[in-house]
Amino acid sequence: MMIQRTGGGRAGRKFSARGGISQRPWTRLRNPYSPIEVLSAEEVERIHRASVEILEDIGIAFLLPEALDILRRAGADVDAGSQMVRFDRALVEESVSRAPSQYTLHTRNPEHDLTFGGNHINFATVASAPNVSDLERGRRPGNFADYLNLVKLAQCLNVVHFCGGYPVEPVDLPPETRHLDALHAFATLTDKAFHAYSLGRTRILDGIEMARIARGISEQQLLKQPSLFTIVNSSSPLRIDGPMLEGVIEMARHNQIVVITPFTLAGAMAPATIAGALALQNAEALAGIVFAQIVSPGAPCMYGGFTSNVDMKTGAPAFGTPEYTQAALASGQLARRYGLPYRSSNANAANVVDAQAAYESEMSLWGAVMGHANMVMHGAGWMEGGLCASFEKMVLDAELLQMMAEVLKRIDVNDETLGLDAIREVGPGGHFFGAQHTLARYETVFYPPLVSDWSNFENWQQSGARTATERAHTLYKAILADYEEPVLDPARREELDAFVSRRKAEGGAIET
Amino acid sequence: MMIQRTGGGRAGRKFSARGGISQRPWTRLRNPYSPIEVLSAEEVERIHRASVEILEDIGIAFLLPEALDILRRAGADVDAGSQMVRFDRALVEESVSRAPSQYTLHTRNPEHDLTFGGNHINFATVASAPNVSDLERGRRPGNFADYLNLVKLAQCLNVVHFCGGYPVEPVDLPPETRHLDALHAFATLTDKAFHAYSLGRTRILDGIEMARIARGISEQQLLKQPSLFTIVNSSSPLRIDGPMLEGVIEMARHNQIVVITPFTLAGAMAPATIAGALALQNAEALAGIVFAQIVSPGAPCMYGGFTSNVDMKTGAPAFGTPEYTQAALASGQLARRYGLPYRSSNANAANVVDAQAAYESEMSLWGAVMGHANMVMHGAGWMEGGLCASFEKMVLDAELLQMMAEVLKRIDVNDETLGLDAIREVGPGGHFFGAQHTLARYETVFYPPLVSDWSNFENWQQSGARTATERAHTLYKAILADYEEPVLDPARREELDAFVSRRKAEGGAIET
Repeated sequence: MMIQRTGGGRAGRKFSARGGISQRPWTRLRNPYSPIEVLSAEEVERIHRASVEILEDIGIAFLLPEALDILRRAGADVDAGSQMVRFDRALVEESVSRAPSQYTLHTRNPEHDLTFGGNHINFATVASAPNVSDLERGRRPGNFADYLNLVKLAQCLNVVHFCGGYPVEPVDLPPETRHLDALHAFATLTDKAFHAYSLGRTRILDGIEMARIARGISEQQLLKQPSLFTIVNSSSPLRIDGPMLEGVIEMARHNQIVVITPFTLAGAMAPATIAGALALQNAEALAGIVFAQIVSPGAPCMYGGFTSNVDMKTGAPAFGTPEYTQAALASGQLARRYGLPYRSSNANAANVVDAQAAYESEMSLWGAVMGHANMVMHGAGWMEGGLCASFEKMVLDAELLQMMAEVLKRIDVNDETLGLDAIREVGPGGHFFGAQHTLARYETVFYPPLVSDWSNFENWQQSGARTATERAHTLYKAILADYEEPVLDPARREELDAFVSRRKAEGGAIET
Repeated sequence: MMIQRTGGGRAGRKFSARGGISQRPWTRLRNPYSPIEVLSAEEVERIHRASVEILEDIGIAFLLPEALDILRRAGADVDAGSQMVRFDRALVEESVSRAPSQYTLHTRNPEHDLTFGGNHINFATVASAPNVSDLERGRRPGNFADYLNLVKLAQCLNVVHFCGGYPVEPVDLPPETRHLDALHAFATLTDKAFHAYSLGRTRILDGIEMARIARGISEQQLLKQPSLFTIVNSSSPLRIDGPMLEGVIEMARHNQIVVITPFTLAGAMAPATIAGALALQNAEALAGIVFAQIVSPGAPCMYGGFTSNVDMKTGAPAFGTPEYTQAALASGQLARRYGLPYRSSNANAANVVDAQAAYESEMSLWGAVMGHANMVMHGAGWMEGGLCASFEKMVLDAELLQMMAEVLKRIDVNDETLGLDAIREVGPGGHFFGAQHTLARYETVFYPPLVSDWSNFENWQQSGARTATERAHTLYKAILADYEEPVLDPARREELDAFVSRRKAEGGAIET
């Protein structure tokens, strides 16, 4: 066996060489195993009932007069002064039942279309980090040059299914037109699905239009085919902001995907218990989804779970904690209770890409994957509880995600794989390296790592004694060096360019 | 909230302060969730049938004439020349059915007695590493001074339930008497359960006697109360060595716990498929357990799963791979098929305590925990595929194990924890830091980490920008500085000392 390592990849294996590294090919993933259920059926109902009580008795503040009008007309109990909206349970149940349990997010490359719902699972990049870092240049404020490189990495890494949002906030671009440049990069540098922020009506309408242009479809077709998604964070506790609600309204009217994710940090914006934080999360998520369904019955919505806890000594948010894992698993049960697709995250609170970053990410990922999340936000690159995007972490996470994807492939059990003939042939004390059974499959049978180094200590030391993070650094540069822009129809490209120019000339999102 | 950090611990929380750090108290763990099943019931049967075919048609080499005699008398088909033993399925099924599905491992502190079987889960230290390392002194060959410190750490870390074997091989002690010094350290420096190696009859009998003396019980009582365990690795493929078989014979005759763990590395000592490696693992594990049950019907046995894969390019063993995780989950299904307690491991192949060490360990641990392993060997401290024990990794793993233990505590869902009154009190946009609901529980409600640093980047940088591994280094030293030897009845201590002196004077394990 002892095959020579080659410099440029693992010859003979079934890899995509895209991105200059050997990696698993693009695959649509499904989780064939039963989810881990941390709540009993009765406990799920108890949390449901608590959240219905919140919606009926306490209410949720909708910080947009237009939204209050819509809700009043639909029969909700609206207090115009406090902006509090109370929903009776019939309205909640009827509205939520209209939300589809599964749908497709289309993109300009149909190979990269994604299904949300059932046991489908899709991994996103890090999103919305204000800072960015790599080993060479350290930590720095978000900027457009790093933004572009992170988007290129997302395009190259096959296990990353879509762009979860701006991987880093390009704060060197003017706020009014930033979304135009950022979305233009999504639409041109990748052919994977992407996200637009619900920061007011103008920006989200620009996002919808750019997604349409990139796909080269009509407005009619866009209404039938979700081609953009937005994450709407409620401003916990018990509040949804105006710009977010404008996003919900326009996205729902255009039949685009709205993910409602309450930001319920137990001990800060939510009760200091996982049960209480889940009850609040559930109430806020349902409120957002009910609103979207009232705006546009049948619009694609998703149940977002982001419950974690704070460090009760310092108030610092923590992620990938045991409570986080439990909440991720429980949130999946709640989402399934309503037949809604479910969004979770790959989160951690580490300040450096070290063992903590890895174990907290693993705790998050196992919660997401075995909670049957359909959308795993921040799948690759997230650090510091979301305050930094890391180039090395993005590659390291690609390894974590690829490993998860392999675990989700069922073990192949048949006469061939059981290999009794090989066992007979090799006999007691023998070795399988040279067996025909081995030779027939050695090139593709086991998962080949991106980052992991399995050489022995002496060889590892001789080749530079590099940590996984140092190896990820080398890999991300190799990937970027090989980046190729995906082909985009020149007419669409021109239309996108013209749209951005026109909207910039108009001042961009001048409403803000 | 914003409570000041104190230097010496987290005042007011319910921790054990043992070992100079704030950690979770000693707890007997159970996994209340359903195991993850990666095999269908039919696939489990198919692997079972394949392994029965191996046992019936190919056979297993038992490299000890005494064992061949025992097996021949029990009706197995023994070929004295090749030492191959074939078992018909009736003998296999009848023998395995005699093995108990649950039992207790007693130790000299009844608080530390352990249950194996059902949904009980117990974490062990690293075992059998030839090298040892820490950040200060680097990697060095195993030695008795480091051995003692690792055993002391095992005693101090509450989440470590028992000593899985020599945490590092004390190669500076003479081989004939090494086991006497090593077992004496187990019996005196800890009051947790420990392991003796099946390296021939003399050593295992010494181990059984020392476990008896440490507990201060009669030989009769020892026969009723398992007080020692041994791991027997088959010499895969298809072979069990003589010294190991002597260990099985004596341990089973004394009603002590025998864990049969085939070393089935797919692609090397087992077929290059997970299904084939599992079939071979199952055949070898059953062969060892059948043998133990023939020696002593009803003796406590355990099904060990250690299937992983090698890097097919280099032949290097890999651990914590996706295949490893799948095999750990599948092995639990096989063990449950026979009603046998199940042993798995926390394994990784990293050469340094970095992100790889953490993510491979997490992949192993999730396989073990959700495979319903009852014994997790190498739970704390294992590196380099078993070639090195790391002081920092032991503390880092204690964090991983504590986090797992927290995930296994069910979410408390009741009116109090749902906290509707607090949600009402805080209202939209408010903060739960000051709520009565929070103040009543903030000290104990969330998991407090050992190693994780949740401070923000600026604070983390100002306090030295230390990685998790560097923090684990400081912690292990603090723990050792506070180590206190557990009280041992002076008469037992004297008897242990006298036993070791006498056996050393006799030359120790002179048979080897």
